[in-house]
Amino acid sequence: MKKVAVIMAGGGGTRLWPLSTPATPKHMLPLTSPHSMLRETLNRIYPLVGEQGILMVTTKDLADEVVREGKVPKEKVLVEPCRRNTAPAVALSTMYVMDHMGGDTIMMVLPADHHIEPPQALAECLDKACRLAAQGWMVTMGIEPTRPETGYGYLETGEALKPHGYRVVRFTEKPSLERAREFLKKGNFYWNSGIFVWQASTLWRELKKHLPQVALPLERLMGRPWEEIAPLLQDLYPAFPHISIDYAVMEKAHRVAMVPATFQWCDVGSWEALWNLLEKDRQGNVLRGDSQVLETENSLVWGQGITVKVLGLENTVVVATPQGVLVCSMEKSQEIKKLLAKGERA
Amino acid sequence: MKKVAVIMAGGGGTRLWPLSTPATPKHMLPLTSPHSMLRETLNRIYPLVGEQGILMVTTKDLADEVVREGKVPKEKVLVEPCRRNTAPAVALSTMYVMDHMGGDTIMMVLPADHHIEPPQALAECLDKACRLAAQGWMVTMGIEPTRPETGYGYLETGEALKPHGYRVVRFTEKPSLERAREFLKKGNFYWNSGIFVWQASTLWRELKKHLPQVALPLERLMGRPWEEIAPLLQDLYPAFPHISIDYAVMEKAHRVAMVPATFQWCDVGSWEALWNLLEKDRQGNVLRGDSQVLETENSLVWGQGITVKVLGLENTVVVATPQGVLVCSMEKSQEIKKLLAKGERA
Repeated sequence: MKKVAVIMAGGGGTRLWPLSTPATPKHMLPLTSPHSMLRETLNRIYPLVGEQGILMVTTKDLADEVVREGKVPKEKVLVEPCRRNTAPAVALSTMYVMDHMGGDTIMMVLPADHHIEPPQALAECLDKACRLAAQGWMVTMGIEPTRPETGYGYLETGEALKPHGYRVVRFTEKPSLERAREFLKKGNFYWNSGIFVWQASTLWRELKKHLPQVALPLERLMGRPWEEIAPLLQDLYPAFPHISIDYAVMEKAHRVAMVPATFQWCDVGSWEALWNLLEKDRQGNVLRGDSQVLETENSLVWGQGITVKVLGLENTVVVATPQGVLVCSMEKSQEIKKLLAKGERA
Repeated sequence: MKKVAVIMAGGGGTRLWPLSTPATPKHMLPLTSPHSMLRETLNRIYPLVGEQGILMVTTKDLADEVVREGKVPKEKVLVEPCRRNTAPAVALSTMYVMDHMGGDTIMMVLPADHHIEPPQALAECLDKACRLAAQGWMVTMGIEPTRPETGYGYLETGEALKPHGYRVVRFTEKPSLERAREFLKKGNFYWNSGIFVWQASTLWRELKKHLPQVALPLERLMGRPWEEIAPLLQDLYPAFPHISIDYAVMEKAHRVAMVPATFQWCDVGSWEALWNLLEKDRQGNVLRGDSQVLETENSLVWGQGITVKVLGLENTVVVATPQGVLVCSMEKSQEIKKLLAKGERA
């Protein structure tokens, strides 16, 4: 079975502002270890596919950093001329795989900025997913929900599949709290981890069906050398829609399966999520960089290139870089987008 | 009656860190208005004595800034070669006044970094104090206490004096909370504002008696041109003790009087004190510089040369400069010295 791991390193979110910025996306940050999230992702995946089995997708402005941090040959990094959502990135990498490795290649698509532990459990789950993918399934990796999270997408599962997995009967993106509680009670709902496994030809067929405005122009480029294709993408890409692969394809496709994750998973989508992951001192604090606290509990304090001193706080996030300072209550750290929206002030 | 206003601009505290630092002491900061505290102090005092009636004392490292910000001729700024406490600064300025203006000159000694409002009330109180000083009294300006503050010195007053004031019978520096409460209940206790008025010759006599190790070496320099004296201070000053004028002289002297202040006074000795002084928005917040808040109440947020974004806090102080970031609960803002003590970490 031919396999390739496609690392989605487009990034660009600001949910961990001021540390994450468009220029230093989350996957470039050493959050859960001394290594960047991207490096951790590659370290997990190398034993499964080797250097030859790695492909990365990123955007133009991040490409040099991804090549440097990933320590991979430049030709293993597919560069999007501008930022779109995951569907165009997936389409581009699938077209590359079709052309260079063949349509029967199994693609394992993994975000570059998730925390996953232990690597062996991921390997086992991917192996199960690959076997389903070889049968023509488009496989998602599902996380057993532990709380009625309203920020994630949910997979509703149906019949069991062999060798191991379930059919996905419905996708629900970011439900209300009430619905999320129902899902949790029902037991057959899982969080969508954003890890996908499929055969290149399976996905290509679905892309042509559900996202022809992206798939068809890319298909016309197939067969040419990549050096010719890269400049042509400059013209195509701006017209591609901003759309996620979940929304564009997965939610509409019929043969979608889910393999339940046996690993610990976190998308590190907020400072609170990071604080939850990291080891705390006796006061429940996580201190990083140049930071000092006194009479402070259950807080995350990070001074990156600037001194931070904290006195008498609890359940608070303080993150400072020379570019800016964020101070927020732990429970509201998921909502910092409201604060970053331009011009907002209240 | 010859009068001179002596502005004590030695500063150097870090109670408003990170905004106040040894290089940018509190009196150089625009805290309560768009002008520095020093400029506000001078603006209050100019109408009383004119430019000719101003004398400033500062230390070598701050002298250029004080001359620039004070917009006074260089010869009006007496420069201490190194930082001592208030007693040497008072002694130096008294010696200068004795020599250049005569011993019968009334000196009004005022800190450069206090908030006082309205100027007219200060003028009236100083006028009363000058009249007592002309009778040989060493006069302090007393503030009616509004809370059992343990960070200030207290003046216990006795018999009433004419034209207006009281004899001071005892100084108590930084009492326990229990004693501070008693003082408040008794009613004849006042906070020591650090504003003093006396005749130069009166103070000189007391300095020679209680602080001869400072007064006698300075007295030997009297009569020489200042250009000769300034370099000689380089040798004398390092041997001078670190001691306040309260402790060195006022607490030991007999003819000490107090004039009760009719003005609003604040030494702006903490971020909470500043927050109390300043006008707040409807959420009770004071926002200065490049700062933005959301779902935040009763807080002081100041981004000076760096962006600060705050979400979901209350009763919190956030002050950031490129040199550092302070985040503390409002109620603990008086205790930030504990945080600044080198190497402390808990």
